[in-house]
Amino acid sequence: MEKLSSTGSFGGRVERYKHASATLNCDMEFGVYLPPQADTGPVPVLWWLSGLTCTDENFMQKAGAQRLAAQLGLAIVCPDTSPRGTDLPGEHDDWDFGSGAGFYVNATQAPWDRHYRMYDYVTKELPALVEANLPVTGQRAVSGHSMGGHGALLCALREPERYASVSAFAPICHPSDCPWGVKAFSHYLGDDRNDWRAWDATQLLTDVDIQLPILIDQGADDPFLGEQLKPGALEQAAICAHHPLEIRLREGYDHSYFFVASFIDDHLRHHAKALGLIASAD
Amino acid sequence: MEKLSSTGSFGGRVERYKHASATLNCDMEFGVYLPPQADTGPVPVLWWLSGLTCTDENFMQKAGAQRLAAQLGLAIVCPDTSPRGTDLPGEHDDWDFGSGAGFYVNATQAPWDRHYRMYDYVTKELPALVEANLPVTGQRAVSGHSMGGHGALLCALREPERYASVSAFAPICHPSDCPWGVKAFSHYLGDDRNDWRAWDATQLLTDVDIQLPILIDQGADDPFLGEQLKPGALEQAAICAHHPLEIRLREGYDHSYFFVASFIDDHLRHHAKALGLIASAD
Repeated sequence: MEKLSSTGSFGGRVERYKHASATLNCDMEFGVYLPPQADTGPVPVLWWLSGLTCTDENFMQKAGAQRLAAQLGLAIVCPDTSPRGTDLPGEHDDWDFGSGAGFYVNATQAPWDRHYRMYDYVTKELPALVEANLPVTGQRAVSGHSMGGHGALLCALREPERYASVSAFAPICHPSDCPWGVKAFSHYLGDDRNDWRAWDATQLLTDVDIQLPILIDQGADDPFLGEQLKPGALEQAAICAHHPLEIRLREGYDHSYFFVASFIDDHLRHHAKALGLIASAD
Repeated sequence: MEKLSSTGSFGGRVERYKHASATLNCDMEFGVYLPPQADTGPVPVLWWLSGLTCTDENFMQKAGAQRLAAQLGLAIVCPDTSPRGTDLPGEHDDWDFGSGAGFYVNATQAPWDRHYRMYDYVTKELPALVEANLPVTGQRAVSGHSMGGHGALLCALREPERYASVSAFAPICHPSDCPWGVKAFSHYLGDDRNDWRAWDATQLLTDVDIQLPILIDQGADDPFLGEQLKPGALEQAAICAHHPLEIRLREGYDHSYFFVASFIDDHLRHHAKALGLIASAD
């Protein structure tokens, strides 16, 4: 992998890298925050998955997470949100599908299946690359925003043994039943809705054994709350499955990174406890 | 003035407004952070001046200042960096001159003098508008980054009675003697360099009576340090004038907002002490 940049940030470094992805059949870029503790030994990683239209840069620039991550000794890795540099039919026409909108699934339908395998990329290829080449451990937490919140829930519900903790900001909770999700899943996964179950947090939640507690923050003034995000569907499924879930509805907050920044410290502490960086009683 | 948006942020609000500027002869937009304390009474303001190519939005999105501003009870106002919506010859050709590069001077040369009066705009028209219409007091601090750091120094050195405190990140310290400044001043102020003295912090510093202490953070890895920013020139002038100046050179930091975010809390506390929001001993 090739280092694109390295910038001081709260005593640590924000770095960007480029590498050839075998999973996605294209070159990809990603961002990483290495706290000062990484200078003296490997540190655990919060994997952050971003939302529609984002790249690896939005969270690093706008969430303000580095301040507390530097205190906790927590690295943060931000993958991009879709394959890049490809030119599939219709890939760049819509902001909510194709480039910038990989939805963290493994596509099964042509032509998407040659590149759009973001789930395997963010859970396997990129962690292996990062853990082999940067001063981080294999201890992982996962979080994300909107489409990336959906991605974080997928990671934790599909492979809970790989993550110490999970949280999400305004996640797309039930993609099989919202316009963004139906559009993406139809193209990436085909029209048989039985094949969608394994990529839908609300439906997955009833099937899992390991019950990793889920922490969600959701703005009450989020314009996508009712039609796209549907946290109530996830809550209903969690109640029925007796799955631990905390949804905090935040009055006065919308879908922006101003909302994410306002509550990121709570999430970092949630993950730091699970990773053993701070005491659970803190 | 017309409210464009209002977004929750750390218990307060990030808002954007549009208004017709009589000083600049055009419509302008600006951003404001109102901390939660502004709900119950007026609060003092940090005036933040941004750098080349920026708008009112960069600082609000990237500096991470709202977290501590919310604790301190400090509002932040971010003006834009030049007149907008005009179409003067060559105005949009270069990133370091014209739109996005007003340099916080009052232009005297045609055609710039009809619009490019950013100094009067940020020190008089906009404060009067904001203080009459938003829950803020007339207590002001001023800071900024790069070209905006130069602007903040101008404000404090030209009219120290209007500001409780001043600081800057990587300011252009001696614009009369660097390529960015010479280009801008030649067009805005004409070729007589005697007319530039009143807009150059290093030259102004020898002329002022009120000695407002100056706090500066500067990245040691800033690529503009030697040719454009020249903090050493300001330091030399401050030594000769016995003007209190603290320049903190930060190893490993560049010119980006990652640098600003890393040290913004120190600056907020500096201003909060001068504004009486926290004890000076803190």
